Amino acid sequence: MRADKMILQVKVYNSYYKTFEVGNVAILDGKFMYIGQRGLESFEAAEIVEGHGKYMIPGLIDIHLHIESTMVTPATFSYGLIRNGVTTIVPEPHEMANVFGLEGIQEMMEASKDCVADMFYGIPSSVPATPLETSGGEIDIPEIDTLLQTGEMICLGEIMNYVDVIRDPESKTNRILRHVREHYPELIIEGHTPQLLDLDLHQLIYAGIGSDHTHQSIEGMKARMAAGMFIEIQEKSMTPEVMDYLIQEDVAQHFCFVTDDVMPDSFVERGHLNHIVSKAIGMGMKPEDAIYAATFTPAARMRMHDRGTIAPGKIADFVLLSDLEQFDVEQVYKDGHKVFDKFEEYHQAQVKCQFPAHFYQSVKLNPLTEQDFTVKLDVADGTHQCRIMMVKDGSTFTSERIAPAQVEQGELVWEHGEHGLIATFERYGKNGNRAYGLIGGDTIKRGAVATTYSHDNHNLLVVGHNKQDMILAANTVLSSQGGFCVVENGKVLSHLPLTVGGILTEGPLEMVAAHVKELRSALLSLGYRHYNPIMSLSTHSLPVSPALKITDHGLIDVNAGKVVPLIVNPSEMQE
Amino acid sequence: MRADKMILQVKVYNSYYKTFEVGNVAILDGKFMYIGQRGLESFEAAEIVEGHGKYMIPGLIDIHLHIESTMVTPATFSYGLIRNGVTTIVPEPHEMANVFGLEGIQEMMEASKDCVADMFYGIPSSVPATPLETSGGEIDIPEIDTLLQTGEMICLGEIMNYVDVIRDPESKTNRILRHVREHYPELIIEGHTPQLLDLDLHQLIYAGIGSDHTHQSIEGMKARMAAGMFIEIQEKSMTPEVMDYLIQEDVAQHFCFVTDDVMPDSFVERGHLNHIVSKAIGMGMKPEDAIYAATFTPAARMRMHDRGTIAPGKIADFVLLSDLEQFDVEQVYKDGHKVFDKFEEYHQAQVKCQFPAHFYQSVKLNPLTEQDFTVKLDVADGTHQCRIMMVKDGSTFTSERIAPAQVEQGELVWEHGEHGLIATFERYGKNGNRAYGLIGGDTIKRGAVATTYSHDNHNLLVVGHNKQDMILAANTVLSSQGGFCVVENGKVLSHLPLTVGGILTEGPLEMVAAHVKELRSALLSLGYRHYNPIMSLSTHSLPVSPALKITDHGLIDVNAGKVVPLIVNPSEMQE
Repeated sequence: MRADKMILQVKVYNSYYKTFEVGNVAILDGKFMYIGQRGLESFEAAEIVEGHGKYMIPGLIDIHLHIESTMVTPATFSYGLIRNGVTTIVPEPHEMANVFGLEGIQEMMEASKDCVADMFYGIPSSVPATPLETSGGEIDIPEIDTLLQTGEMICLGEIMNYVDVIRDPESKTNRILRHVREHYPELIIEGHTPQLLDLDLHQLIYAGIGSDHTHQSIEGMKARMAAGMFIEIQEKSMTPEVMDYLIQEDVAQHFCFVTDDVMPDSFVERGHLNHIVSKAIGMGMKPEDAIYAATFTPAARMRMHDRGTIAPGKIADFVLLSDLEQFDVEQVYKDGHKVFDKFEEYHQAQVKCQFPAHFYQSVKLNPLTEQDFTVKLDVADGTHQCRIMMVKDGSTFTSERIAPAQVEQGELVWEHGEHGLIATFERYGKNGNRAYGLIGGDTIKRGAVATTYSHDNHNLLVVGHNKQDMILAANTVLSSQGGFCVVENGKVLSHLPLTVGGILTEGPLEMVAAHVKELRSALLSLGYRHYNPIMSLSTHSLPVSPALKITDHGLIDVNAGKVVPLIVNPSEMQE
Repeated sequence: MRADKMILQVKVYNSYYKTFEVGNVAILDGKFMYIGQRGLESFEAAEIVEGHGKYMIPGLIDIHLHIESTMVTPATFSYGLIRNGVTTIVPEPHEMANVFGLEGIQEMMEASKDCVADMFYGIPSSVPATPLETSGGEIDIPEIDTLLQTGEMICLGEIMNYVDVIRDPESKTNRILRHVREHYPELIIEGHTPQLLDLDLHQLIYAGIGSDHTHQSIEGMKARMAAGMFIEIQEKSMTPEVMDYLIQEDVAQHFCFVTDDVMPDSFVERGHLNHIVSKAIGMGMKPEDAIYAATFTPAARMRMHDRGTIAPGKIADFVLLSDLEQFDVEQVYKDGHKVFDKFEEYHQAQVKCQFPAHFYQSVKLNPLTEQDFTVKLDVADGTHQCRIMMVKDGSTFTSERIAPAQVEQGELVWEHGEHGLIATFERYGKNGNRAYGLIGGDTIKRGAVATTYSHDNHNLLVVGHNKQDMILAANTVLSSQGGFCVVENGKVLSHLPLTVGGILTEGPLEMVAAHVKELRSALLSLGYRHYNPIMSLSTHSLPVSPALKITDHGLIDVNAGKVVPLIVNPSEMQE
């Protein structure tokens, strides 16, 4: 019998019995053809690979992630995935959709077509997440229809406005859900259902939401699984309690591992989904079970019936490992072809300018001047009680603090004080909105930082303690059509240009990782105290994340869901 | 919160943990909305059902069966299903396709649309099963395309010619499989892979075949499951060894229960898939596991994501049982509406003449006369060695016996001898073919039987010991445009008219069941010895079932795959 490739003497992972068995594997036309004891006496193989007793597992599959979290393009992302043994992903281009709308999604998909890793896209369902901000793009029913009619979308991405789903039948999210249930009843709908239980939870599931990837408690996870939800475990859910539950209970069908957001330096240093698998094994999960949750169940959840297991007829995506505990990826094969070998050179191909020209001209702002950081207030001079956005380590949530600030000659006095200024500038050329606030806590204590990588609207966000540094930081970012820049005493400490939509770079992964580490150090050197200062800063503008945030509409009281003034109304103080 | 119906205080089956938990269930718009401890304090329910602590399980789902085996129409079949708690089936109309081709399938689907039970059709893939017979219809790529383009077909039905798949790349079956893999790569393909192992088995799976419902051995079942096949367990596979394996091993995801073929009297007396579940429980399977294999896994195999479990958003098809071990079906609900209650009247609605007129005029044969049972042979008068089709109890296989028979005046002498005559007449008006053979063993010893219910070609098949009884039996069947008739001494002992295509009746289920019992008794009274003489007789014309069978082409040596003469060639005898 003819075969294109024969892998001899490997410990083959069997997904159906969750065991390894020594044998030979024949591949024909990019698919597994035979797994068993027969060898070269039965097959005429064009190529023979000696397995040397290595472990052979299916290529890893990550069904919930955002490429933009890594600030790179799909080509760069694929390069990073493959060497970590990840051969299929389901990205949801939520950020590119916020910048470019439908076209952002379409161009990400186009940019993924030549990648080695297979990328099947989810439709961002919450763009923008609220009406309290100006974003570049919007996704509503017409855009969803356009995308679904291509037949290429794998799911509706995470429904973020779970509150609206439960409380407001006429909300945009419920309109979208009703439309999808009626016209595409088979479509997979991904969820984001933090802390919900009982009737609230069942209402969301009834509305069509079939998964949750938020931080899990045991109680919440049991309630979800019992109601038919599929659980996507990301690193922050991997607490000892949750892992013990997953290890001990008969729930293997009901969960998988996902990465969600991976920073570039973490991608380079720790890896990707393989890191999660390795961590799960380290926490006591049997390797066979951890692999199952990174191959078989994610494929099943996304109804990718052609992959996720080493069995006849399935796509020959696989990884050879020398060691299970360390999860040491030696070779990676995609469609039966070797695409990575630890012992051979592995370079990132340079892919430049693959997006339309206007994707590199998305930041429509003139250079800023002192005037742009002069905060004029229509109040009497003197001391006023102000809302301060307080940053705290360990969380992307901020808190609101009320503290006095001076107004002199109609201008807020903020330079060289206890609190810094936070400013945001609408940058899509839509309305010229801008907003200002005061910021304190675990943020920078001097200098300035500016970025267009600011969730979800990706307007220009600037934080600083003096105008000159803020102007330099902002204009440096503008000069590269987006980026992330840290400045101190008139000197740029670090600058990562993000020229694609102001949120991605086409630079090579290792360079981006080094840059991000440099940015991190620069922020810490200015007094930022946070395990992930980049994520902390870039979520100051996220109006669905409590408590006091800022968008181009103004300061946002997230829990109240409304814009609030910088200066606290005296009547409000008396309450 | 609004609900259409609230079921209070039931033991609800949870498919995800395979447990029962006492609670309340809210239904809205035909779907489960909530399952839990909340009750009327949280819901305004239009209707309240007191559960009285009964067991509430999902409606049973049978994904491999042939309605024609029960000789009734979909309307009658649905009536029988519902009272047994079966709410969804996947029928494969193999027999109607053999009689009417594409139109037979389309009309069965049309006839199913108003049924209470949901019927999702598989495409018969092997019509006719061989070129050694004249059937009424044929299914090839154009017919498959026509059906798939409706979007209504759920799978490609069992691939019967597994030998062709393995040995002959250019066989019709491989042409069909290649076409389907190329144009409909997501289509589920059902299999029929008796006894195959190792490379042969993997070749079939590689070709796209994902399930097997034939008789299972432990070794074969393990090999199938390990290669990713889904196993459909029918009653004949429920040996103590197989059941012990299914009970003890962690393979619940890999199998389900199916009925395949249920005779009308068995349907009335024993039930349907509920009987299989009950039998599994009787053989030691936990009720929770047996229910899983009749609800959750069959739905999963057929990718029916909207049912098979009691969870928010799923179709509210369910059964209330008073007792789990006895599997006592008390009430059945479809889409949230009660459709059966053990304590209320349950009548079969009469559905007549629902097929096109020519479906009732499908037997194109003139009444038979003595000449039609006169077997003229072009050999010298005297004794000749003949092939005898030997019937044996316990099997649908026959064997070949060589025995002498007389030829006088150019005619075979067969009346009043040890062996009976078996004759078949092409009845589609295509070519007027007929064929004759001799029959012995456990078949009738006197009288005659005639039927158009003869697999798979459904030509007129007549077996008997004298011409007059054979003429009466045949003409009685012809007079009703098809049927099954038993005659002795010039008297009709039993006759079941099968006026739809010569294979189905529109009569009520109880009447058909009574008729079939009467037919069985009549056959036994004539000396037939078989646990299922109707099935035995109706497979005498099945040229894929060993060893000596008969079609309108002649006697068929099934293992050799060719027509063989009645009189053994003397040279052949010397071999």
